[in-house]
This record gives sequence, C-alpha cells and structure tokens, in this order.
Amino acid sequence: MNRFTHLIDLDDFPVSYIEKIVNLGADIALNTAKYSEYCKDKVLATLFYEPSTRTQMSFQTAMLRLGGTLIGFDNPETSSVAKGENLKDTTKVVSSYADIMVMRNPVEGSAKAAAISADCPIINAGDGGHLHPTQTLTDLLTIKLEKGELENLTIGVCGDLKYGRTTHSLCKTLSKFSGNRFVFISAPELAMPDYIKDICEFKEIYSLEDALPELDMLYMTRIQRERFTGTTMPQKYILTKEMLAAMKPDAIILHPLPRVDEIEIAVDDDPRAKYFLQAKYGVYVRMALIIEILKNEYPTKLLSGEFSDKICENEKCVTTKEKYLPQSFSRKGDTIFCDYCESLITQQQIP
Amino acid sequence: MNRFTHLIDLDDFPVSYIEKIVNLGADIALNTAKYSEYCKDKVLATLFYEPSTRTQMSFQTAMLRLGGTLIGFDNPETSSVAKGENLKDTTKVVSSYADIMVMRNPVEGSAKAAAISADCPIINAGDGGHLHPTQTLTDLLTIKLEKGELENLTIGVCGDLKYGRTTHSLCKTLSKFSGNRFVFISAPELAMPDYIKDICEFKEIYSLEDALPELDMLYMTRIQRERFTGTTMPQKYILTKEMLAAMKPDAIILHPLPRVDEIEIAVDDDPRAKYFLQAKYGVYVRMALIIEILKNEYPTKLLSGEFSDKICENEKCVTTKEKYLPQSFSRKGDTIFCDYCESLITQQQIP
Amino acid sequence: MNRFTHLIDLDDFPVSYIEKIVNLGADIALNTAKYSEYCKDKVLATLFYEPSTRTQMSFQTAMLRLGGTLIGFDNPETSSVAKGENLKDTTKVVSSYADIMVMRNPVEGSAKAAAISADCPIINAGDGGHLHPTQTLTDLLTIKLEKGELENLTIGVCGDLKYGRTTHSLCKTLSKFSGNRFVFISAPELAMPDYIKDICEFKEIYSLEDALPELDMLYMTRIQRERFTGTTMPQKYILTKEMLAAMKPDAIILHPLPRVDEIEIAVDDDPRAKYFLQAKYGVYVRMALIIEILKNEYPTKLLSGEFSDKICENEKCVTTKEKYLPQSFSRKGDTIFCDYCESLITQQQIP
Repeated sequence: MNRFTHLIDLDDFPVSYIEKIVNLGADIALNTAKYSEYCKDKVLATLFYEPSTRTQMSFQTAMLRLGGTLIGFDNPETSSVAKGENLKDTTKVVSSYADIMVMRNPVEGSAKAAAISADCPIINAGDGGHLHPTQTLTDLLTIKLEKGELENLTIGVCGDLKYGRTTHSLCKTLSKFSGNRFVFISAPELAMPDYIKDICEFKEIYSLEDALPELDMLYMTRIQRERFTGTTMPQKYILTKEMLAAMKPDAIILHPLPRVDEIEIAVDDDPRAKYFLQAKYGVYVRMALIIEILKNEYPTKLLSGEFSDKICENEKCVTTKEKYLPQSFSRKGDTIFCDYCESLITQQQIP
Repeated sequence: MNRFTHLIDLDDFPVSYIEKIVNLGADIALNTAKYSEYCKDKVLATLFYEPSTRTQMSFQTAMLRLGGTLIGFDNPETSSVAKGENLKDTTKVVSSYADIMVMRNPVEGSAKAAAISADCPIINAGDGGHLHPTQTLTDLLTIKLEKGELENLTIGVCGDLKYGRTTHSLCKTLSKFSGNRFVFISAPELAMPDYIKDICEFKEIYSLEDALPELDMLYMTRIQRERFTGTTMPQKYILTKEMLAAMKPDAIILHPLPRVDEIEIAVDDDPRAKYFLQAKYGVYVRMALIIEILKNEYPTKLLSGEFSDKICENEKCVTTKEKYLPQSFSRKGDTIFCDYCESLITQQQIP
Repeated sequence: MNRFTHLIDLDDFPVSYIEKIVNLGADIALNTAKYSEYCKDKVLATLFYEPSTRTQMSFQTAMLRLGGTLIGFDNPETSSVAKGENLKDTTKVVSSYADIMVMRNPVEGSAKAAAISADCPIINAGDGGHLHPTQTLTDLLTIKLEKGELENLTIGVCGDLKYGRTTHSLCKTLSKFSGNRFVFISAPELAMPDYIKDICEFKEIYSLEDALPELDMLYMTRIQRERFTGTTMPQKYILTKEMLAAMKPDAIILHPLPRVDEIEIAVDDDPRAKYFLQAKYGVYVRMALIIEILKNEYPTKLLSGEFSDKICENEKCVTTKEKYLPQSFSRKGDTIFCDYCESLITQQQIP
C-alpha cells in the first residue's frame, strides 16, 4: 500500500516537502524550458468523474510542458469506465496504463481509496467537499512569487468560510509558517469553523472594507447564492475598484477562480490583482508536483488500520459507495476519524 | 491590445499576407515532414463553445504535424469553463496556459472580444454567423494547388448564398485577386446579398446545369432544409453525376463539408471532385497559419475606439452578452459599424 | 480497395500473422522503451461512435508509448462529424488527417465499410455485436505471457456464451492452435452456438465449480441481467474465493472487463487472477498491432464482389444505414454471407 508517493492531503507531508515543491515551482516559473523533457515518454491520466475543465487543463498543460503525454476522461455521462464500474477496477486498469494519475471525484475519500489499489502515484484534484490540495499549492506559489515569502503575512480571507474547502486548506497550511496572522471576513453565518480557528492566530471582521487596510494579501472566494436565503449577496463582500484605495500598495489579491461577481471586473486592471497570474502559476506548481511525486521519495501512508471494527457514518464517504473497501479509522486525541473522508466517528466510545 | 497577430477576419490583412500563408501552405503540402518540429514545446488550446469536430480535428492535426501539443474543450455541456464564466476570465486563463488559441463560439464578435484580453494569439474558427476565415484559407490553398493560380478564374458558387457565411468570405477574398468572375447559382430567395455583389464582377443564374459549362471551379454549399417551406430542396441545385459531362475537363468541384445531399455520392469518383482533398489541404493551410501567426509580424488592430457612445443593436453581438466589454464602433463611408460583430448601427446619426 | 492492411476480422489473416503480432507484443511487454519512437510524427485517430473509454484509452496509450499522437472523438452526442454525416465522408476526411484510424461503431460491418473508402489503415475496435478482434489479441498475449504457449490448453469459458462476442472470437482463434480443448460453462439457455462448437473440441458443463479442476485457464465474462427473466444471476456462475481451492495452482483467470459481480473482489488477490494484467497487456498487443499494420505487408481483401444482386437482410448491417455502399456477398459452402456483417442470406437460392 505504501509503494508510491501520492498527494491525497497536504497534511500527509512535512512542511519541508511542501516548501520543496513550491521552491521548485518558482524555479520552473523562471526557467520553464529547462524542464521540457523531464517527463518524456511518461503518460499522465486525468480521471475526472465530475467536470472541472480549468483544473484538468492546468494539469494537462503541466504534463505537456514537461514533455509528457495525456490520456483520460472528463465526462462521466459518456465514459463507460466511470459508469457502472467500481472505483478499484477503473483505478487498477488506468494506473497500469499511465505513469501518474490525477483524479477528481465528488465522493469524499475517493482519492485515497483509489491510491490503495493503484499501480502508479495518484494526485487528488478534489474529492468532493473534502480536499483540493493542488489549489493550495497554487496559492502558496503565488504568494512566494508575488510576496517573496510565505511568513509574517497578514492574510485576509473573504467569502464563504464555513463551507469553502480552499480557504480551510490554505489557512491550515499557511498557519504552519511562522508569523502569519489571519483576518476572516464573512457574514456571521458563514464564519470559519472552529477546527481552523483552533490552529491559527486570527480575528474576524464582518466587513470587507474595514479589513482591507491591514492586509498583505486578500484571498477572495465565491459565495454560493443559496447561502443567502431570499436575498442577493450582500454588497459588502464584493471587492470594488473604489475599495482598492484602502489597500496597501504592495498588497496582493488572489482568487481560486472561477469568480462570479465577488470581484468587480474593473479591479482586474489594478496591478495588485494577481488572480489570473495565480492561474498561470498553477501550471508551474503542478509541474513541480509531478516531478517530485515521480521521484517517489515520500511513500504515502494510506490506511492506519488502527481501528477497523466500525462503519463510517458519513454518507458521502467513499466507503459507503464502494463496499469492498476495508474500513479504517485513526485516533486523534479523544476522537476517532475515518481514514478516507476524515469525518468524526460518534457511534462508539473509544476503547 | 495590439501585442499579437490574431486571425479574427481575413480583411484585417493585406492580400500579400494571405498569399504568404497560402504559399507556405503549398510548400507544407509538398514537404510536410520539413515542418515537423516547428512547434516543438508549444501548446495549442482549442476552445470550442459549440461542437465542430471536423474543424477542431483539422486544427489539432495541424498542431500535431508541427510537433506541438494540445489542450482544450469541445463540449459546452460538460465544460465548467464554458458554463457560467465570462469570456474574459476563460480567455485570460487558457491563454496563459497556451501559446496559441483557436476559438469557436456561436456569439458574433466573440473571437475579437477574446483577443482583447488574451495573453496569446487567437485564431477565429467561427464566431456564429459572422466569420470563419480558416475555411476561406482552405479554399484558397485548394484552388492554388489544383488550379495553379488564384486569378483569372470563372467561379461558380451554388447553394444558400444569402445566409452562407463561407461563400461570402470566399467571394470577398477572391475578388481581391485580378481577373476573377463569379457566377452566383441559387434560388432567387437565397441570392447573394448586395454587399458582396458590390465588390465583384458577377452574373446570377437560377439553374446549376445552365451555369456549369463556363466554370473553372464550382463551389457547392449546403442549403438548410427550412429555407424551402413545405418542400424538399429543388433538384436543380443538386450536382449529379450526369451533369458532370457539361463541365470543363479541368474544372474543379469544392465543398466545405459536411454535405447533405447537394452533391450525389456518385460524383465522388470523378477526378474533378476535390472536396475530400480540400479537407486534407485544410490541415496544411492551418499549419501555415499557425507558423505565420506565431511569427507575430502583423499585430492585429482590434478596436478602433472611433466611437464608443453607442450600443450595438445586434442581439447576437458579444457585447450584448459580455456587458463589461467596451463598446467600439468605426465609420465606413456613411455608416457606422460595430467593431465586434460588424453590424450596422442605425440608432443615431453620425456626428 | 486493397491498398492497406486493415484489421477488420482476425479471420482475414493466417495464424502465422496473428502469432507474429502476439510475439511482438511479448517483446514490447519486456522492452517497452525500445519502441518509444516507432510512431514519431504519426497520428492515430480514434473514432468512437459509442463510448468505450477503456478500449479507447488502451489504444491511445499504445500510440503514445510508440511516440505517436492522437486525434479523435468519443461522444456521438457532441460530435458534429458523427451526427448527420455519412460514414464515408467522415472516414474520407479523418483518414486523410491521420496515419492510422481506430473505429468503434454500433453498426455491424461498419469497420469494413469505413475501410473501403479510407485513406489510411483501419483497426476495428468493435462493430456492434459483430467483431472485436483486439480483445482477442489481448487475450492471446495474456495466455502467451502467463502460460508460455498458445497450445495444448484446457480452456474454460464461462458466462453468456450465446451472445458473448469476445468468447466466440477467442474460441475461433484458439481452436486454430493445436491441442486446445474447451469447456463451455453456462446456463443451457446461454450455451455456445453451433458454429463455434463445429470447429473445436469441447464439452459443456452447467456448473462452474464442477468445471474448475481440469482447467489451465478460466475465461469469465459478464452475463447481462436481462437474460435471466425475473431472477438474479445464478450463484453458480459467480467465481468466489472459496472456489479457487479447486483450481490448478498454475491456472490463470481472465476477464475482458468491466466485470459486474461474476468474479468476487476477494478473488483479485489470488496470484492466478490475471485480469488486471490482461488489461495492461492489451496496451502492448495494440502497440504490436499498430506497428504491424503500418508495415502494410498484408493488404486486406475487403469485398469479394462474388454476388451483388442481393440485399442484406440484417437490419443492423451497415448496408441498411449507408445506402450508397455496394452490396457484396460471398459463398461459404452451401450458404451466402454478407461481406460486411457476415449474416446469412436466406432470401434467394444460390444460383
């Protein structure tokens, strides 16, 4: 089970490994051509069980810029593999065709489940509401290249902080670097959950405008319409051109894209708007990731096997759909978590 | 805005530039292998907002034959990029991944709109009913290779001349070469519009059979069923094997494909039938185009900015959908045209 | 018509040619890198008129591992080529873009029909219920590599033997090698048809368990639910972990995949389970096939033209859909068969 270095969750790696990827990404950004033969004769498979054209194209471009080639699917409707076949069989077969595989799947924990039986390394490109680690790597490279460091920053995070996967992952990772302070900007009903607040230095502000002056970086995210019953999104969480005057001249504005209207288009022309550059940097950091993963210096532990006599209660967990998977849970302090989807197990007392 | 050579409209270029592309295409047809490394390490993105498998495969083959690689999408239903995101954001991101981008989009003027914010050159592979310049380049290379020249030809054009985009573009371009005469063959209700008649030497004939004897080239096109209310397509606009006897022995027959039934399948075996060769030549001329565009010797003027205080009245114009686009209009003689979709502005007097 | 070596039907080739492909596949399995430039500058088109992601990815991987590149489509819904255009026109155009073409099409005889007008070699990747020769090549290479020989084997074949295309083709081909005996394992209503029984040494057993002890190889296949009215699939045609004890220690278990539940997942860990390896070997044998086909040492006879004054009665035959195709039939003993779909003609006495 531990034959390959898989990227399922950034938390599986020490900070030094993440820094290594980001630093390599920075070198690739400057010297892209130097890496143009690195993956010659290698095949990347992109298995997208739900469409995400931008993420898929970003990985594809990364592999092509490394001299590699591509197979894969992106449309579960027309893919006979995605339809009706269990995840294990698809993974076994495609991973025997390819040298490295990127998977996106709406089912939580599916990337880890795929890694268990894969014959090549797996990169998690999003497993439902659970994890999306390469977005965080993209964010880190952007900060590195545009701020010069990953430390001692005052970081504003605005939008749907309650459900927004990318902001959780970013905050978790940036809190591992020293001196970072967070400003969580959201409506109270969409506030950052405690498990993130517990691990970082933060304050909460309910107005974007009020938060702007102190920020070194502002990370904007989409708010899904349906979170605000009966109303449109409050104007105060939309970044307008007028508000830019309040920001530091060397602050940077990031967004994982696609945006809806939380950043006015007129903001795009401001030199502090870095979200399109950020998308471009996503290619470089994925090139770095592919290179590091293929070195296989960090075989990934997948299932702890600490407990196996329980059933995961999360109905979105991959173990609910793929019945053949071994149940596996780990103790973290006083609680027990599913090794696939990381949801808390309440059904039984810890022995 | 004028950083790249984009192919939005053949009219943006002098005839000499078009000839250069066609001549290069002719050399590529003979010496394809010579160009097999030209685009090594380059990535072509094909963004098809409506499916057009043949055109997309033609561009893809062209890029592959140049040693380049491919990203893109072809299915707006499953493409998260195409869905819900504005054209600018998609263009910004994908053009930062790729070295050159081909776009097909049912919205008129969308290729120009994309070019405004793109970080790489754009080739227009069809923007609604507006333009499809690479089809015309394909036609020109076919004439060049099969007739030896682009001048002094009697050119029959048959089918739906009123709405047929490809015939307008072909006639506009061929009329720039000396000595070309046109024979427009159509039902009266589908006759060639005045703006084409105004620029070329022509006659109109209502019977294909009557027109055949004098033609050096016959350009056949599809007629959409619904143009003929309550009836099938008149037999007299269908080219049959029997009719071939009336044609010159060295005439050539072209068709942009796909055909429905306007050319009998029995015609295919006649040596004058060149429409399948024409499709093949489309790869060579697109190879030539990619090479020339990447040289960036002719940065394309996009918006004149002559007038901006109007609103385009064409509801299919990209400015109607993408509200952030600056309005821009140009004077041509006594009239004002939208810079995106080229439709005439009637709402206001010219100042 | 006989310009290229097409793989429409394995029966078009002598056993020696099939052995040559399998032997080359075996060498490729061991020395894949040696072949990594064989198809440099060559383009493979994959035309999939019905989705079959696994087969398509297998061919794509094969071409990429040979250093070639890819065009194609996989979704008839969004493919303008697949929609509304006749097979001849699509084939003509795409085969002029590509160097070799793989086609899957639900219409019987369509691969042969495509080959008639193609400007490059065609590989049949499944034409409806008719043929799927590259699955058989995959099976042969697996037997070669895992048993060391293609002869003197006792071969169990289990599942829907009546309708299962892959088992017919496998038995037909293996019966050409000396010393092979077959054990047909199925419910009586799904028994192997006579035309296969007529050409091989066999016995029939109605219980999988009873058949296991004598087998050198067990070939499992899917049974479509609807074959068993009102019931679930009989337990006795499901291979369970418990049943493995009855098998020879050096037996091998194959399955064309995807499986539904005819092989328990617990069987996967047994070293005799070779079906995932089989999928991987499918890439190697397709690499071998592409290499051999491109050598063009065996131009394929397509239509016999022996009789043309009949109409094929098979409503799934390509001649029913593509009316322009010449009818062509061959005598085999006392009967007349359609050259496209191989169905028997009953309408008229043989002259």
